[in-house]
Amino acid sequence: MYQDQIIIDGLQYCRWDRDYFMILQQSGISAIHVTLVYHEDARQTLTRFGQWNRLFEQNADLIVPVYNAQDIRAAKANGKVGVFFGAQNCSPIDDEIDLIEVMRNQGLLIMQLTYNNQSLLATGCYEQCDNGITRFGKQVIQEMNRVGMVIDMSHSAERSTLEAIEYSSRPICISHANPTFAHDALRNKSTEVLQALAQSGGLIGFSLYPFHLPNGSQCKLTDFCEMVAKTADLIGVNHLAIGSDLCLNQPQSVLEWMRNGRWSKAMDYGEGSSSNSGWPDALPWFAPQNGMRNIYHGLLEYGFSQAETQQIIGKNWLNFLETSLIKQQ
Amino acid sequence: MYQDQIIIDGLQYCRWDRDYFMILQQSGISAIHVTLVYHEDARQTLTRFGQWNRLFEQNADLIVPVYNAQDIRAAKANGKVGVFFGAQNCSPIDDEIDLIEVMRNQGLLIMQLTYNNQSLLATGCYEQCDNGITRFGKQVIQEMNRVGMVIDMSHSAERSTLEAIEYSSRPICISHANPTFAHDALRNKSTEVLQALAQSGGLIGFSLYPFHLPNGSQCKLTDFCEMVAKTADLIGVNHLAIGSDLCLNQPQSVLEWMRNGRWSKAMDYGEGSSSNSGWPDALPWFAPQNGMRNIYHGLLEYGFSQAETQQIIGKNWLNFLETSLIKQQ
Repeated sequence: MYQDQIIIDGLQYCRWDRDYFMILQQSGISAIHVTLVYHEDARQTLTRFGQWNRLFEQNADLIVPVYNAQDIRAAKANGKVGVFFGAQNCSPIDDEIDLIEVMRNQGLLIMQLTYNNQSLLATGCYEQCDNGITRFGKQVIQEMNRVGMVIDMSHSAERSTLEAIEYSSRPICISHANPTFAHDALRNKSTEVLQALAQSGGLIGFSLYPFHLPNGSQCKLTDFCEMVAKTADLIGVNHLAIGSDLCLNQPQSVLEWMRNGRWSKAMDYGEGSSSNSGWPDALPWFAPQNGMRNIYHGLLEYGFSQAETQQIIGKNWLNFLETSLIKQQ
Repeated sequence: MYQDQIIIDGLQYCRWDRDYFMILQQSGISAIHVTLVYHEDARQTLTRFGQWNRLFEQNADLIVPVYNAQDIRAAKANGKVGVFFGAQNCSPIDDEIDLIEVMRNQGLLIMQLTYNNQSLLATGCYEQCDNGITRFGKQVIQEMNRVGMVIDMSHSAERSTLEAIEYSSRPICISHANPTFAHDALRNKSTEVLQALAQSGGLIGFSLYPFHLPNGSQCKLTDFCEMVAKTADLIGVNHLAIGSDLCLNQPQSVLEWMRNGRWSKAMDYGEGSSSNSGWPDALPWFAPQNGMRNIYHGLLEYGFSQAETQQIIGKNWLNFLETSLIKQQ
């Protein structure tokens, strides 16, 4: 039964308020990977942690912070929604190697090495050229491995992603992206990347963001399940999960912050365009109340076994976090 | 006569104190390009400006801030040493395009797009691969062009430097480096770069840092003048100047800060090595009291004309700054 399962959404950036936490709780989600920051630097990241501490204090009946896999099981057992944090960019560490452990101790469990642009560590998927992992980046990967902070390459370019997989001594994740064979987009991942990811024990969370899907907002649940099935044929079901990239109730200004940060004077439209600059239309079958439930049933109907469906809907994330978050000595 | 000339040293990072300012004044130098920061971020850069404001206040009889070419002429006329500021990295703007004008208004006249590593803007000369100017970097070049902040590619990699020259609508400088034909080092510049620099009206300041010179600390004044002459044959004398890279009276900890910033857990030795980790031995003919004077006479003796020598020893820098610092509308 759906309600007995560990359900994990491997990326959301919604407007976080009590109403939304109630919806999350009712949806049966056990834990979500919350994007804490997009472009915020170290100092601003502390403010985001502070804001979330306040949310935890005010909504202790609904949500609970997650620092390890056991916290997710406890959240599930207590009927609460576990929240674990990730950064979509490496901006929280500024240019300082020692801030990795500081941020990890604060509760930053996952960090992308780049957002769409070149970072100090690696190349983002929107740059024209990709020179792979930088000198600083190599040290950061080693340090993230040491302290048990998960490397996420969702918004990184091809070569950088392959090198991150190669240089990392621990499996990495692509928390929210889809295969390019399903939809060819700069943000999606090549078959070569998916195979290297799986061979190293990594995880990909399928995105529900329309710009990443075949037929965009018209993508049907069966189309989505077909994409999952083809990926399972390619790399096996052990590496598949969900990272919906759900961004609900956010104003246009948040979308513009995600796309432009502080770096652009001209308006950058990201995956959109000047004539299509807003949030894409939501998928009717992926509303927050029942989106994960619909995927669960959709996968079963498509032909996945009970065990496989449970893996994809949450257990793979749980297993991945179980080992990835342990600090090495 | 030497004392009648405009003498400009296009890069120094000495320990700045009253004793050293007196030596500078006695040496006949009209103006120096002072490195304000290596890895300091925006906030820390403000502190450096504050420290310099205090030095200007306490040593007003010796030094004077330079905001334009006229300030250099005035310093010369008043027997003082003009000081203009540059950053060896783009760290003073953090990740924020609008900080370029803010820093320019504060008096940052020159900024390198990278130090030795990959930056948000371009690739440094110590990285294994160079993907050229980034998305953010392209906007930064445009903005630096607009506000009249000089682009400096001294520590940048080959392709990034060629692209900076190409993308910049104004001439750029390489404030302190030598040609690789004189000494093959990652920090020195290829003939292709030198030619592109000159064709676009740019400037190179010859470095007196032993690691950049043929025979290192054993380099003789005539070897130096030969390098200048060969470069003049290649790209003409209009593009040649001095950027000594003099770092006097600085402890080992400053060298380690330059090389390691906050990015490295392992000790990075830069142009040195674990068995040669300190400051290189100074050139006996380039002591601060008489170094520029020795070069002046050395160039004359080598066969440069009076006019050419005056250009190289300061006038080219003055002319370059005359046009480069004007804000575009």
